[in-house]
Amino acid sequence: MELLLNHKSIRKYKDKDISEEIIEKIVECGTRASNTGNMQIYSVIVTKEQSNKEKIAPMHFNQPMVTEAPVVLTVCLDINRFKKWCDLNSAVHDHGYDNVLWFVNGVIDSMLFAQNLCVAAENEGLGICYLGTAIYNAEEIIEALSLPRGVFPVTTITVGYPDEDPELVDRIPLEGILHHEIYSDYSDAEIKHLYKYKESLGSSKKFVAENNKENLAQVFTDVRYKKADNLFFSEKLLQTIRNQGFDI
Amino acid sequence: MELLLNHKSIRKYKDKDISEEIIEKIVECGTRASNTGNMQIYSVIVTKEQSNKEKIAPMHFNQPMVTEAPVVLTVCLDINRFKKWCDLNSAVHDHGYDNVLWFVNGVIDSMLFAQNLCVAAENEGLGICYLGTAIYNAEEIIEALSLPRGVFPVTTITVGYPDEDPELVDRIPLEGILHHEIYSDYSDAEIKHLYKYKESLGSSKKFVAENNKENLAQVFTDVRYKKADNLFFSEKLLQTIRNQGFDI
Repeated sequence: MELLLNHKSIRKYKDKDISEEIIEKIVECGTRASNTGNMQIYSVIVTKEQSNKEKIAPMHFNQPMVTEAPVVLTVCLDINRFKKWCDLNSAVHDHGYDNVLWFVNGVIDSMLFAQNLCVAAENEGLGICYLGTAIYNAEEIIEALSLPRGVFPVTTITVGYPDEDPELVDRIPLEGILHHEIYSDYSDAEIKHLYKYKESLGSSKKFVAENNKENLAQVFTDVRYKKADNLFFSEKLLQTIRNQGFDI
Repeated sequence: MELLLNHKSIRKYKDKDISEEIIEKIVECGTRASNTGNMQIYSVIVTKEQSNKEKIAPMHFNQPMVTEAPVVLTVCLDINRFKKWCDLNSAVHDHGYDNVLWFVNGVIDSMLFAQNLCVAAENEGLGICYLGTAIYNAEEIIEALSLPRGVFPVTTITVGYPDEDPELVDRIPLEGILHHEIYSDYSDAEIKHLYKYKESLGSSKKFVAENNKENLAQVFTDVRYKKADNLFFSEKLLQTIRNQGFDI
C-alpha cells in the first residue's frame, strides 16, 4: 500500500545494470495479472543494447530516459501468437480476432501486465517511467522492433535504479473521480473546485508564465496537447492500427 | 511480490460489507498510478445498491459475482471532466480530445488506475474479479450508469471478502512472451511447445471433451470466443465508441 501511495516516475537512473534474473522476475509478476480468457494476448520487447536504444529514442521524442535507462521495455498487445496457435489447431483460419474488440481487449490486458510488472519493479528497488509516446509513433516502433501484423505497441517503460527522489505529484480530490451508483456530471463550480489546488501550485503558475498563457488549462490545450497534434497523431494512430491488421 | 505472484480471481464472496474508508483508500491507490500528462482521464462508478447490481447484471451476462459481491466498480475513461475544465478556461471549445488517440490514452490510464486499485484491494485482504464484459455491453452500461459523452466503461471489477481459495491458473512459459531487442516470431514447433502444458491440463481436456472438440484451441474459436460473437460485439463496440463522441 505504501509502495503504491508513494509511486513517483523516475527519469534519472544510476549506471547499474539490471540482472536477467530480476527482469524475468518482474515480467513473471506481470503475467500473473488477470487477463481476458487467460489468452495472454501480450508480449514484451526488452531493449538493452545501446545502439537499439538510440534507434528508438527519436520515436519517443528523444526523452533522455530512453538512452540513459539500462532497460527499456515495450509492452505490446499480441494476437499473433494466439492466432498462430488457433491456426495450427483448426481447418478454418479466420476467427474474427482482428478487429476493434480484440484491439481494446489487447490494450486492457497489456496494461494489466505492464502495471503489475511496474509494481514488482518498484518493490525490487527499481524506478520506472511510462512513455505514452509508444502509441504516438507506433508506426516507427513497429518497424524498429520488427512487430508482425497482430502485434501493436501499447506502452514503453524505462527501468533502472533510481538516481533521483522527486516530489509526489498532485492529484485532484478523490471526490472528483468517485461516483456513487450513477455518474454525477460536474457543474462549473465543481470543476473549479476540483482543479483549484492544481492551479494554485507554484509549478503550475511557472508553466503559465513561461508559456505566456492566461491559465493552466491553456498550457494543456495550447502547448502540451494542442489540437493540431491531437488530430495529427490520432489519424496516424488509426492508420497504423489498420496497417497492423485490425479492422477498425 | 508474493501478493502479485499469488493473484487469483475471486468469484465467491463473504456476506460482509466493505467500509467506505477502505473503498476510498483503494481508489486513492488507483489514483497514484502513472497517467498521461497527469490529466487523470478516468472515473469510477461504485455500485452498492442491490437493485442497481441487478440492473447491470444482465449486461455482464448474468455472471453471479455482480449481484453477490458487496461492491461492483465500473472503471471508465473520462475526457468529459478534463474537457469541461478546458472549456471553462478557454474561448475555443474544440481541442481535439474526442478521437482514437485519446480513447486509447483513456483505456491505458483507466487500466493503470484499475490495476493499482486491485493490488491495493488484495493487500487489504479483499478478492477481486475483472469482468471483460464492460466493453461487450458498453452501450447498455452507459445508459444504466448515466455516462455522458466522453465517458466510456473500460472494465468492471467485483470486490469482496473472499469465500473461496481457488488454484493458481496456468500461464504459458515466460520465454513465450519475452523478446530480446526485436520481436522473434514463432515457428509452429515453438507454438506447440508454448501451449503444450496448457493443453495437457485435466481442466483443458475436460473442456475439450464436454464441448465435443478435437483440441483446446477449438474450445476458444468455436465456443468461448467464436467468430460470429467477435464480429457482432466488435461492431457494437465501434458504434458505441462513436456514439459516445469519439471520432473513430
